[in-house]
Amino acid sequence: MKRPWAGQVEKPPEEHVPRFDPRNPLCPGNTRANGEVNPTYDSTFVFENDFPALQPDAPDPGSEQHPLFQSKAARGVCKVMCFHPWSDVTLPLMKKQEVVSVIDKWAELVEELGSTYPWVQIFENKGATMGCSNPHPHCQVWASNFLPNEPALSDRCQRAYHEKHGEPLLLQYARQEAEKQERVVVESSHWLAVVPYWATWPYQTLLLPRRHVLRINDLTTEEREDLAAIMKRLLTKYDNLFEVSFPYSMGWHGAPTGLHLKEDNSHWQLHAHYYPPLLRSATVKKFMVGYEMLAQEQRDLTPEQAAEKLRNLPEEHYRTREA
Amino acid sequence: MKRPWAGQVEKPPEEHVPRFDPRNPLCPGNTRANGEVNPTYDSTFVFENDFPALQPDAPDPGSEQHPLFQSKAARGVCKVMCFHPWSDVTLPLMKKQEVVSVIDKWAELVEELGSTYPWVQIFENKGATMGCSNPHPHCQVWASNFLPNEPALSDRCQRAYHEKHGEPLLLQYARQEAEKQERVVVESSHWLAVVPYWATWPYQTLLLPRRHVLRINDLTTEEREDLAAIMKRLLTKYDNLFEVSFPYSMGWHGAPTGLHLKEDNSHWQLHAHYYPPLLRSATVKKFMVGYEMLAQEQRDLTPEQAAEKLRNLPEEHYRTREA
Ligand SMILES: O=P(O)(O)O[C@H]1O[C@H](CO)[C@@H](O)[C@H](O)[C@H]1O
Ligand SMILES: O=P(O)(O)O[C@H]1O[C@H](CO)[C@@H](O)[C@H](O)[C@H]1O
Repeated sequence: MKRPWAGQVEKPPEEHVPRFDPRNPLCPGNTRANGEVNPTYDSTFVFENDFPALQPDAPDPGSEQHPLFQSKAARGVCKVMCFHPWSDVTLPLMKKQEVVSVIDKWAELVEELGSTYPWVQIFENKGATMGCSNPHPHCQVWASNFLPNEPALSDRCQRAYHEKHGEPLLLQYARQEAEKQERVVVESSHWLAVVPYWATWPYQTLLLPRRHVLRINDLTTEEREDLAAIMKRLLTKYDNLFEVSFPYSMGWHGAPTGLHLKEDNSHWQLHAHYYPPLLRSATVKKFMVGYEMLAQEQRDLTPEQAAEKLRNLPEEHYRTREA
Repeated sequence: MKRPWAGQVEKPPEEHVPRFDPRNPLCPGNTRANGEVNPTYDSTFVFENDFPALQPDAPDPGSEQHPLFQSKAARGVCKVMCFHPWSDVTLPLMKKQEVVSVIDKWAELVEELGSTYPWVQIFENKGATMGCSNPHPHCQVWASNFLPNEPALSDRCQRAYHEKHGEPLLLQYARQEAEKQERVVVESSHWLAVVPYWATWPYQTLLLPRRHVLRINDLTTEEREDLAAIMKRLLTKYDNLFEVSFPYSMGWHGAPTGLHLKEDNSHWQLHAHYYPPLLRSATVKKFMVGYEMLAQEQRDLTPEQAAEKLRNLPEEHYRTREA
């Protein structure tokens, strides 16, 4: 962190997004690439991605004998979910009840798609630095006919830990972090957000319930209200860190669904990962490149330093303070 | 790939770098951050990184009992290696014998640092998009007192395959690819470069010898000459793809060293990975974000499409054609 930086700088995020843009395919009432017209929605709005990476009828790649050349059809669906009718709000700037609607819709989609698909990935790419090309607040939900690599690894590790120690890994972990306090960013009666012990992105966080919960659709009404409140607090701190709409990729991991609904998944604990790219300022990010790609991730600041910095930031959003 | 792109665009790489810049700490004769003066070198030049991530005397983090909170001191050294005295050349534009000098120096460093360190990671971050903040042609060499995650995984998989199939994985793989030809980019009597079957970065390549070779310092003079020639061909194609100095992170993986020198490492095969970020043009990259970080990497074009595109590009560099 002492090294002077003469490398690439990012364009700071656009601070003045119009509330409604007639050319934005995510706004209410507008026409999308495929000719469909969006309803004049006033809460969340879900539709099928017009350029889906996963399709229900992907062709079979055929079979090869050699063990090094094995492939299988990846089938699924890709949905886009708008959080709000307005383009100029983000989750921390939305009303708590509006965030509850987002959580309810997430739960509904996991319930619905999870009835057949083994994995439903909810994720949000926020900001141009994270490959997001539309400022309208939205996330994506991709359901697949297979367990992707990351959840497969998470499943294996949580299962092994549970077998060995008799308690779900993340439940034990959350209790330890709540006791230690050194990596806690925000906490509430039902939730805990920490910069995890293993964090590699500078301001990475892990958000998880204190109670043993397998999937997002298992959350009670009270837990959902509390989640909306803690998300607003965490994301406000993120925005306040460099006084910009903070970019990140985030997503939910819960117990697998589909066929796995009938299995014992008590080793699982629901959680969300936040991976923000910024390191030094609103325009200088952490580059996960050479050594990280070829050898191992390398930390530029410790999780304890990051947690302390985030913890000490105000919980009032810099944009509402300005106003 | 059919999706219109309205997202982030990168600044195209600087095409007119001065041959010598009195303020560039990597140029011959200049003074670096720590006050040291570079020699007026005329080939390669190696020095200790002024801002090292690994240090030989990193303090011990102390011991914790809980299985979820385990850490160890990561010790090592970080070196920087300039490829050439001039800032305005890159490997594909250097003379073949100058590239041979780079390869000889790589071999020397693996021999020297590998006598004690279990892992010596040679890597090059090229271009601002890959976090490189200095246009002078250079790479880095980080040696560590532990086997980092990626090589540890590579070791495990190569060992398991060797035990099961009686032949090193990558030796069998290279033979199969040489026969199939559909993913080959360039080949020579001793080397093969393919877009690997498992590629996730759009123009990712794998460069490996045809002979069973454990480490870069085991290469014969003839193999080094041939490697310099194939590197020039591969990197010229990369530059010709979008007619820019093509950004990438690359690095070498060979059998572990240090204590592992005494073990049987015959499951290993030396190879280099090239991970280039560009997808659509000189300014639009592939974003490895939400779904990729949380679930699984997702391909925007097939390895066969990428290989065909690279294979069909001329082997004369666009800048020498211009001249
Ligand atoms: O060491 P450099 O070139 O200053 O820094 C670059 O490479 C390192 C190793 O891949 C990364 O950790 C840094 O994020 C990147 O900017
Ligand atoms: O689906 P989008 O938002 O158009 O695209 C974005 O998210 C995808 C899933 O993480 C990535 O594969 C793309 O590289 C990124 O630009």
